[in-house]
Amino acid sequence: MAHVNEIDAPVKALVTDELIGSFRAIVGNDFVIVDEENRTEYGHDKTEDYQFMPDVVVKPANAQEVSKLLQLCHTHHVPVTPRGAGTGLSGGALPVKKGVVISMERFNKILHIDELNLQATVEPGVITEVFQNTLKEKGLFYPPDPASKGSCFLGGNLANNSGGPKAVKYGVTRDYVINMEVVLPTGEIIWTAANVLKNSTGYNLTQLMCGSEGTLGIITKIVFKLRGLPQKTVLMMIPFVTNEEACAAIASIFTAGIVPSGMEFFEREAAAKTFDYCDKVLGSPVTTKLTDGMDAYLLCELDGNDEEVLMRDAERVMAVVEKFQCGEILFAESAAQKEELWKIRKNISPAVNWYTLTKSDDVVVPRANLPKLISGIKEIGKRYGFNTVCFGHLGDGNLHVNILKENISDERWEKEIPEGIGEIFKLTVSLGGTLSGEHGIGIAKRPYMPIAMSEVNLNLMRGIKKVFDPHGILNPGKIF
Amino acid sequence: MAHVNEIDAPVKALVTDELIGSFRAIVGNDFVIVDEENRTEYGHDKTEDYQFMPDVVVKPANAQEVSKLLQLCHTHHVPVTPRGAGTGLSGGALPVKKGVVISMERFNKILHIDELNLQATVEPGVITEVFQNTLKEKGLFYPPDPASKGSCFLGGNLANNSGGPKAVKYGVTRDYVINMEVVLPTGEIIWTAANVLKNSTGYNLTQLMCGSEGTLGIITKIVFKLRGLPQKTVLMMIPFVTNEEACAAIASIFTAGIVPSGMEFFEREAAAKTFDYCDKVLGSPVTTKLTDGMDAYLLCELDGNDEEVLMRDAERVMAVVEKFQCGEILFAESAAQKEELWKIRKNISPAVNWYTLTKSDDVVVPRANLPKLISGIKEIGKRYGFNTVCFGHLGDGNLHVNILKENISDERWEKEIPEGIGEIFKLTVSLGGTLSGEHGIGIAKRPYMPIAMSEVNLNLMRGIKKVFDPHGILNPGKIF
Repeated sequence: MAHVNEIDAPVKALVTDELIGSFRAIVGNDFVIVDEENRTEYGHDKTEDYQFMPDVVVKPANAQEVSKLLQLCHTHHVPVTPRGAGTGLSGGALPVKKGVVISMERFNKILHIDELNLQATVEPGVITEVFQNTLKEKGLFYPPDPASKGSCFLGGNLANNSGGPKAVKYGVTRDYVINMEVVLPTGEIIWTAANVLKNSTGYNLTQLMCGSEGTLGIITKIVFKLRGLPQKTVLMMIPFVTNEEACAAIASIFTAGIVPSGMEFFEREAAAKTFDYCDKVLGSPVTTKLTDGMDAYLLCELDGNDEEVLMRDAERVMAVVEKFQCGEILFAESAAQKEELWKIRKNISPAVNWYTLTKSDDVVVPRANLPKLISGIKEIGKRYGFNTVCFGHLGDGNLHVNILKENISDERWEKEIPEGIGEIFKLTVSLGGTLSGEHGIGIAKRPYMPIAMSEVNLNLMRGIKKVFDPHGILNPGKIF
Repeated sequence: MAHVNEIDAPVKALVTDELIGSFRAIVGNDFVIVDEENRTEYGHDKTEDYQFMPDVVVKPANAQEVSKLLQLCHTHHVPVTPRGAGTGLSGGALPVKKGVVISMERFNKILHIDELNLQATVEPGVITEVFQNTLKEKGLFYPPDPASKGSCFLGGNLANNSGGPKAVKYGVTRDYVINMEVVLPTGEIIWTAANVLKNSTGYNLTQLMCGSEGTLGIITKIVFKLRGLPQKTVLMMIPFVTNEEACAAIASIFTAGIVPSGMEFFEREAAAKTFDYCDKVLGSPVTTKLTDGMDAYLLCELDGNDEEVLMRDAERVMAVVEKFQCGEILFAESAAQKEELWKIRKNISPAVNWYTLTKSDDVVVPRANLPKLISGIKEIGKRYGFNTVCFGHLGDGNLHVNILKENISDERWEKEIPEGIGEIFKLTVSLGGTLSGEHGIGIAKRPYMPIAMSEVNLNLMRGIKKVFDPHGILNPGKIF
């Protein structure tokens, strides 16, 4: 808890034995966790080394149980933190004010795949990749694709408006949700909209919920729209002499009218650490080689149904990037080679976190401002004495910046480095960008919100929060 | 005013001479309209024969002037109705509680087209088609495309979350807005977000504003994301024996994995009236002929950059529709022929309204439920004694239903027909749909909102409204 000085002192969580008894009556004995060892699991996520202990963990099975739990907590003013798979990178699912964690892990059913309307109704505890694979068997496609897709939940994706590599062509989670069942902090159950592709019927509660990080309600059912699955992909790895050259090339690819289905970037350093991690931790060494003298890499994927069109587009990409200082382009010839290139990209974050503790940022700017952003970040790092590993979804201007603890003292890590992060955010905002593209604010970026928005904006958000949650019980201490 | 019994009695609008003097001091004498003849123009839109007289019309030129106007009206509790081009179909821009109309007609500048980032910053009074044409010259594309694009304003498109024919492939207005400058009812000026493609930084105020029909703030600048302009289109008109066959064919086209850039529907009756209108009113007769025995028509457009791929997709569409009872497919061979087919579609609404007074609905359902919706509407029409003309964007399940007054008495038109409309909405909701796909609720559909959503939903919306507009001055009497 020491790491998050900004959070107001925890309120006294009123989780009495009587209340725990009521929880047991609602969900059954097996689904109320009070012993310390098991509770500990629900006190951290993938954000730094944060740890906050809940008083009790409750695992409801349906909206009615969630409703009863929230009614009780609302009445007794008890803090409630909803939790998905705990893969978040901003501490959004951590019970910073103690109280109750409501774990959504039992909401794990794909309820209906409506092939005629290209829609699916799911529970929020379905793992993203399980959903994708189930759809794939029917020739259907759900594009949002966070790196943690093998373990994260769809509900968590909604709470944070997750993106992933395919967002650059297909959009993020909010572009696929059309309706949801939500239990409000007062226990009332609503549907936010209707199962339709267009909707101009009152304020858009669906879009308000999406990205609200579990502060406005607990999602219990989700209706997504789907697409047809593209049948073919082409994948290239393009090395560049510098980060700035790689970033400049990206803007040119888009202005040439090409829309890749993936446009990922990583620094040489990120790849090097990942090679090490794949070898030593995963026991599955990478065979791809990095080109000498090349410091930055783009993974460019094109998808579609027509091989010829794809090859023509790939040639157009090559014609564009060759105007920049790039090395020899690697075409992934086989499915296995494609998989290996994606393995590098997807293991960057675990690799860097295996190497050292990190503070992870998720800034986003207009695409053409990326070169200025990256050089600025490196300059700030020099000034504050920290190294960074940069990678991410640069097609949509979304850069992940991992700040490495390495030999930095605990004191400097907690006092000075956050100032440097503030500088990164100020730079980002000065370039027309903002704090988070897809990880959310949670507790990690909460202190920096005034850099991105005015007090008027924050007060509107606080006002909206109060409309949904008059007692302020749901996920307190997050975002603002 | 007699037509809208549901609106609470107008509050006494406190537009004193002193206040009008202050308005003149803010915007200049020429931009404050008090004479009756000129005010009348601002008292109606394209919804039935509604007419509501404002006390005064003010035409500010920039956000600062809007801010000063709203501060004054907030202080004096004076109703303010923001107005774009007045092309709305639900009465959203009508000053039902009198007071001040703020006309945005002077906000007519395209401020910046950022070709590098594929973004544009515009004022809300830019005409949609002017914006599209300006972009087209640079090879850029803004897809939302309401039938009124030749006169409607981008700000009005945002207020109602407008769609149009291309929404089926490219999405609606809300899919293109990434940031906006808004003056709140209290006079405070905010930007809702940042100029970025992905954003998980607090509640999504941009999406909350979009579709809120001018009840939460007045938009003074808009940042849109853009696309590259597709170079080629194929357009087909496909006749069907019945509406139901046409609707069923649509669902099959999508499940076959084809994504048309337009999938418009009209009944024979709609086309017949349009032919008459084009001939007698526009003086530009239609040369296309309707096939005998065919009662329903689809306009199916495909777009892209590769002629061969388009022709292949067109063949796939033909293979699908031939499984239904359809007639000979008309391929538009030339640009002129394409233009004529679109002329038919775009003049349906003016044609029907020239023929007789109408009440116009804009219901939306999951695509596969369209056949049930259309037969149900015809059945309700028989029961309540009214004829309907149906057309619209059926690719995304969005049906426009024009109820014809013809010989119906004024009394039945005002008393019984609205009950029939209620039946249409109940049917729509029972099919998983909702009241409006793109026209908004305004005053015309306000009485029916409880059919589409619970009192809990409506109270959330009312609560949000109060956060933004504590004195309830902005566009009162709309939506809920």
